[in-house]
Amino acid sequence: MRIDCHFTPGPVDELALRERTVVVIDVLRASSTIITALSSGAREVIPAATVESAMKIAGNLGPDQAVLGGERNGRIIPGFDLGNSPAEYVGSRVQGKSIIFSSTNGSQAMVKARYAAELAIGAFINMGAVAAVVRERPRDFVILCSGRNGGFSLEDAVCAGMLIARVAEDQEPVMSDSAVAAMSLYRSLGRGILKMMRTSDHGKYLEEIGFGGDIRYCAAVDSVPVVPLLEGNVFRLRRESTSSPVNS
Amino acid sequence: MRIDCHFTPGPVDELALRERTVVVIDVLRASSTIITALSSGAREVIPAATVESAMKIAGNLGPDQAVLGGERNGRIIPGFDLGNSPAEYVGSRVQGKSIIFSSTNGSQAMVKARYAAELAIGAFINMGAVAAVVRERPRDFVILCSGRNGGFSLEDAVCAGMLIARVAEDQEPVMSDSAVAAMSLYRSLGRGILKMMRTSDHGKYLEEIGFGGDIRYCAAVDSVPVVPLLEGNVFRLRRESTSSPVNS
Repeated sequence: MRIDCHFTPGPVDELALRERTVVVIDVLRASSTIITALSSGAREVIPAATVESAMKIAGNLGPDQAVLGGERNGRIIPGFDLGNSPAEYVGSRVQGKSIIFSSTNGSQAMVKARYAAELAIGAFINMGAVAAVVRERPRDFVILCSGRNGGFSLEDAVCAGMLIARVAEDQEPVMSDSAVAAMSLYRSLGRGILKMMRTSDHGKYLEEIGFGGDIRYCAAVDSVPVVPLLEGNVFRLRRESTSSPVNS
Repeated sequence: MRIDCHFTPGPVDELALRERTVVVIDVLRASSTIITALSSGAREVIPAATVESAMKIAGNLGPDQAVLGGERNGRIIPGFDLGNSPAEYVGSRVQGKSIIFSSTNGSQAMVKARYAAELAIGAFINMGAVAAVVRERPRDFVILCSGRNGGFSLEDAVCAGMLIARVAEDQEPVMSDSAVAAMSLYRSLGRGILKMMRTSDHGKYLEEIGFGGDIRYCAAVDSVPVVPLLEGNVFRLRRESTSSPVNS
């Protein structure tokens, strides 16, 4: 198995992902939010790169079924139903709904990775479950970190390193420079995930705009053991086969 | 002082570098080669992003003064005088010459950083000298790693981390996520620089194409204590004021 990791989606060649298992990571907060929404009973999550395409998809689905979610610069998009706080994606607001989701960084990476042989969403909260999915597939494996505004995000890189460590546990994969770096960052900074996230650029920004509570939620490893997988153009749930079902 | 670091030049906003001291790092091998060329008595090094612009500049200077140097995919460019091995950039081939230099990754980053308040070239071989230059300037400081083919390079990131560690020694700079990550990588992997470089993606490639010897040269910290600085469109030498002069 070869393991590669991209710290930002920008330079990624979309077609090079075609025969790979790809995991998109946007810890703060798109990955964590989508995992939460599906675990809370949402029917599906449809990633949209732009606000315009999100609006169009929602129009086609109709208001009973569609929920518009997402953010720009951490704040809810005007006219949307929900922002990008996982705390919003619970209960009747999401149960049975199709969530059209557009965020500054995460949904861009998800759209970029759409040609993958299999595309999963990963975060600290579903770490074990997503590692299990990757380990089951006899394919090369690529992590696509969403980063932040085109640049590097520490929490995504450490999360990528933790995932690589779990996937590589009893194997000897060939690792790219970036995969080696992600593992090293996880080994150095992964003992204090909450602290690392609170002092990261994105963590500090979220505290500033009033979403500090989300950081603790997103730092809780293995708290939501489900894996969103892309089917056609939508993410649906794939429960970890070895764990007991939660939330229905 | 704020310290930022870009692991790849792609997403960098050129104009955002205008009031910063910028150090471009391409350990294997453009930075190490340009430092060596100027230390060996080259008059100047002119970075060119494309082969075409390099040819044009050389034509304007004339064959007595101009030397064309650089590589694509590690190998000399057809029609050029020198490749990208620092071992070539010594003696009469470079003394007093204007070297027009174009490489796959490094010279792209140098051209991208041309609006910096001050632009220096850094590598392991001039580590202390380039750290001294940065420390003297009362400005925010940005490192631009050249990376490899648009992606992350481990040796550039570890070199960036070592430079940040030296610059930040007795200060308390504000560091971006990527600067924190670079420091962490240096602390984990910087004890065995030669080994790290030999097992990196680019190191393995250079071994394959017969340039393994360059890796040892480029890993020798503080062996060539001079700093190329951009003046107009050319790099010239800035000797470290605290060290004794070498090579003339």
